[in-house]
Amino acid sequence: MAAIKVKTNLVSKNILDYSNEKRDEAKNKVQEILRKQVNFNEWLGWVDYHKTKMAADYSDLQKFKSNLSVFYDCVVVVGIGGSYLGTRCLDEVCHSSAVETLPVVYAGHHLCAQSHLELLETLKDKQPLVVVISKSGTTTEPGVAFRILRSYLDQKYGDLANQRIIAVTDENEGALIGQAREENWKSFVIPSNIGGRYSVFTPVGMVPLSLAGYDLDEFKKGVLDFYQNFDQQFMDEVVRYATIRYAAYQQGKKIEILSVSTPKAAYLAEWWKQLFGESEGKEGKGLFPASVTTTTDLHSMGQYLQQGPRHILETFLTFSQCSGSSLKVPNIKDSKDNLDYLVEHEMEYINKVATQATMEAHSKGEVECIEVSVSDRNPYTTAQLLCFFKVSCALSAYLINVNPFDQPGVEDYKVQMFKMLKKPGY
Amino acid sequence: MAAIKVKTNLVSKNILDYSNEKRDEAKNKVQEILRKQVNFNEWLGWVDYHKTKMAADYSDLQKFKSNLSVFYDCVVVVGIGGSYLGTRCLDEVCHSSAVETLPVVYAGHHLCAQSHLELLETLKDKQPLVVVISKSGTTTEPGVAFRILRSYLDQKYGDLANQRIIAVTDENEGALIGQAREENWKSFVIPSNIGGRYSVFTPVGMVPLSLAGYDLDEFKKGVLDFYQNFDQQFMDEVVRYATIRYAAYQQGKKIEILSVSTPKAAYLAEWWKQLFGESEGKEGKGLFPASVTTTTDLHSMGQYLQQGPRHILETFLTFSQCSGSSLKVPNIKDSKDNLDYLVEHEMEYINKVATQATMEAHSKGEVECIEVSVSDRNPYTTAQLLCFFKVSCALSAYLINVNPFDQPGVEDYKVQMFKMLKKPGY
Repeated sequence: MAAIKVKTNLVSKNILDYSNEKRDEAKNKVQEILRKQVNFNEWLGWVDYHKTKMAADYSDLQKFKSNLSVFYDCVVVVGIGGSYLGTRCLDEVCHSSAVETLPVVYAGHHLCAQSHLELLETLKDKQPLVVVISKSGTTTEPGVAFRILRSYLDQKYGDLANQRIIAVTDENEGALIGQAREENWKSFVIPSNIGGRYSVFTPVGMVPLSLAGYDLDEFKKGVLDFYQNFDQQFMDEVVRYATIRYAAYQQGKKIEILSVSTPKAAYLAEWWKQLFGESEGKEGKGLFPASVTTTTDLHSMGQYLQQGPRHILETFLTFSQCSGSSLKVPNIKDSKDNLDYLVEHEMEYINKVATQATMEAHSKGEVECIEVSVSDRNPYTTAQLLCFFKVSCALSAYLINVNPFDQPGVEDYKVQMFKMLKKPGY
Repeated sequence: MAAIKVKTNLVSKNILDYSNEKRDEAKNKVQEILRKQVNFNEWLGWVDYHKTKMAADYSDLQKFKSNLSVFYDCVVVVGIGGSYLGTRCLDEVCHSSAVETLPVVYAGHHLCAQSHLELLETLKDKQPLVVVISKSGTTTEPGVAFRILRSYLDQKYGDLANQRIIAVTDENEGALIGQAREENWKSFVIPSNIGGRYSVFTPVGMVPLSLAGYDLDEFKKGVLDFYQNFDQQFMDEVVRYATIRYAAYQQGKKIEILSVSTPKAAYLAEWWKQLFGESEGKEGKGLFPASVTTTTDLHSMGQYLQQGPRHILETFLTFSQCSGSSLKVPNIKDSKDNLDYLVEHEMEYINKVATQATMEAHSKGEVECIEVSVSDRNPYTTAQLLCFFKVSCALSAYLINVNPFDQPGVEDYKVQMFKMLKKPGY
C-alpha cells in the first residue's frame, strides 16, 4: 500500500470539476519539474539531490560522527526559517521512545533576551554541540545567537571550544565558511541550488538529526523510494492535492488550514506554512496558510471553522498508526465522568475517530475538506510526506504562475531594520 | 502613562473614516456592556467579577494554599480550551527569573497517546498537584487525561492520592462537583455567568497560577485598576481597536493576524485566537484569527505578509520593556559576521527596532497595521491587557450582531464523535 493517500470530502462540485479539468496540465507540469525542464530550474537541486550528492553527503556525515571524540549530551541548532523548521519538524514527528535520541535545542530564531537567558540556563549543566546553519553567516538572528553561544563555549571550554562547533553553510561564499576555515570548525555544505525551505534532507536537517542519534538510512530510504516510485505511487496524490488547492483558490477560498491530529505534528505544520506561504505568497496571490492541532484547537478555533465565513479549505493530515504508542483509557471505579464507554479503547483509536468526526462535522458545515493520510508516523513515511509536500508546493506555485523558489519580500523588513539600527552601508 | 495604547498605521483612509463613524455607537455599547444592559447579559459575570466574588475567591484560595501541608514540586493543569489557555498565556508571558515559580504542566487538551505517555514519564520523579478544570466534568479530552492521572496518583500515593487533586468546576451541577464531594477533593467554583474564554481571572486561571507561586495580588490589582480607570485610560483604546477591526472587516479584510514580538507571548496569541474566533466566528461572520511570532516567523510567513493578497489586518502586540531581561550582543574578536555594529546594544532594543521596522515594511506593502502597545511585560500589565482584549472582543461581536458568549458550533464534532464511538444515548 502507498504511504500517502489524498482523499477528498468536497462540498462544492465546482471545485472538483475545476480541479479535474486542470489534471492533465498539472501532470505534465510535475514531469517537467522532476526533469528540471521548467523556469527557475536553477533552484531545483532538491528533486535530484538523492541522485547527485545525498550518498556522499550522508556518508561524510556518518564518518564524521563515528570519528567524533568529544563527549556531548545535547545538540544546539542555530538557525532561522528553513534552517531550523525542517529539523524541528522531523525531530518532533519522528521522536519515539523506541529510539533514544539526544535533546535538540533551538536558538537563533528570535531576538528575545529572556529566551536567550533561559537557553544559557538550560545549557549550564550540559555538554552541547553547536550546529550553526546559515548560507551567508550574516543573518541577524542566528548571528546574534551564535555570538552568545560562542562566548558561552569560550568561557566553558577555552581552546577546546572549536571542537564543539559545526557549520552548515555555502561551499565557498559567505562569512561563515571563511570563519569555519580559520577556526577549524567542521563544515558541511548547503547545495547552492536548493533553497532553505526545500533543504530538509540536505545537511541542513541531517547534520543535527544525525548528531542527535537519528538513523539517516530511514530518511534516505524514504526519499529514494519516493522518487523511484513516484509515477506509480505518488503522482496521482500530488496532482490531486495541488489541483484541488488550485481550484479552491480560484473559486474564492482565502485560507488553507492544515489540521494535524497530534501535538507532535505542530512543527510539521510550521514547516508546511513556510513552504507554501513563501513559495506562493507573492504578486498578491496565494492561499493564506494556517494550522490547527486537533482535538486541542477544536476548543478554540473549532467554532469559527464550523460556523464562520466559508472561505476555508481544510487539509486534514492523519497518520493511520503510530507504532509503539499503546495506551488505553483506564477503568476507574465509580467514576461519574460518563466515560466508561471508552474503557479499554486504545487512545489512538479514539483520536482517529475524533479526526474523522471532525472532518464530517466541518464538511456538514460546508467547509471544503481534504485528507492527506499517511500510513504510519515514522522517519521513513515522514520523509515521503515532506517530499510529497515539496513537489505539491512547487507544482501549486507553477499553476498560479509564481516563482516557487524566491522570497523577494523577506528583505523588506531587514532593510528597514538595518537603516534604523544604523548598519554600515544602509 | 496608561499601560495600553492603540496606535494605527492604516493604508486605506476608508478604514479610518469608517471606524470614526462607528465611534459613538461603539462608545455607548461599551458602556452598556460594562453596565450589563445588553442582550446575552447573563454571560457578563466577568465585567463585575472584581466587585462580586474576586476578593472572596482569592482569599479562599490564599488560605487554602497557606494551609496546604502536602509537598509538591509541579502543578498539572487538566483542561482544554478556556480551561487552560488563560493559565498557559499568563504563565508564559509573566514568567520571570525574578520570581521563582514551579513548573506548570498541561494535560487534557488532546487525545495523543504518545504525549500522554511522555507526560507520565515527566511525572515519574515529580510530586505533582493535579488541578482538574471543567464545568461539566464529562468533556472527553480532560476526562480521559484525568483518568490516566488518577491511576498514576493511586499507584503512587494510594489512600493519600485525594490530597493531591483539586477541582475547579460548577458550584452545584455536573459530574465533577459530585465526585469532588465524594472523594474529599478541595474544589473551587467557576462562576455560572462566566464562559470559559472569559474566565482567566476566576479560579480557572488563578488556582493553578497561585499554586505555582504567582502573586495573585498583581493580577488582582491589574484587573481592579483596569475597570476603575476604564473611562479615563482604556475606553478610547478599546473603542479604537474594536472599530478599526470592524471597519477592516466591513471593507473586505478576511484575516486578523496578531503579531507578537517574543516566543513568550505565543500562548497569549493562542488565548486571543480562542477569544476572538469563538466570540465572532458564527453565522458566517468574523475575521479569521491567526498569529505570528516575530522575528521568528518573518522567515516563514513574512513573504506572504509582505507580498501576498492584501486581505490582512495585522495587529502588532508590543511590550515597551521587559524588566529584568538584560542581555547585550557580545564582542567576538575577528568575527566575520558583519554584526559588530550591534555590539553593546541591548537585545530588547534590537528586538524593538525589528518590530518597528516590520510594521513599516508591512505598511509599505499595503498591509493595514495596528499596534497594541503595553508599557511593560509583567503580571499587572498583562492582566490589564487581557481585560482590554475581553472588552474589545465583546464589543466587536456586538458590532457585527452576533452573541459574543455562545459557541453552538463546538458541539457538532462531539456529537458526531459520540455516535461513532457508540456513547450511550447517541
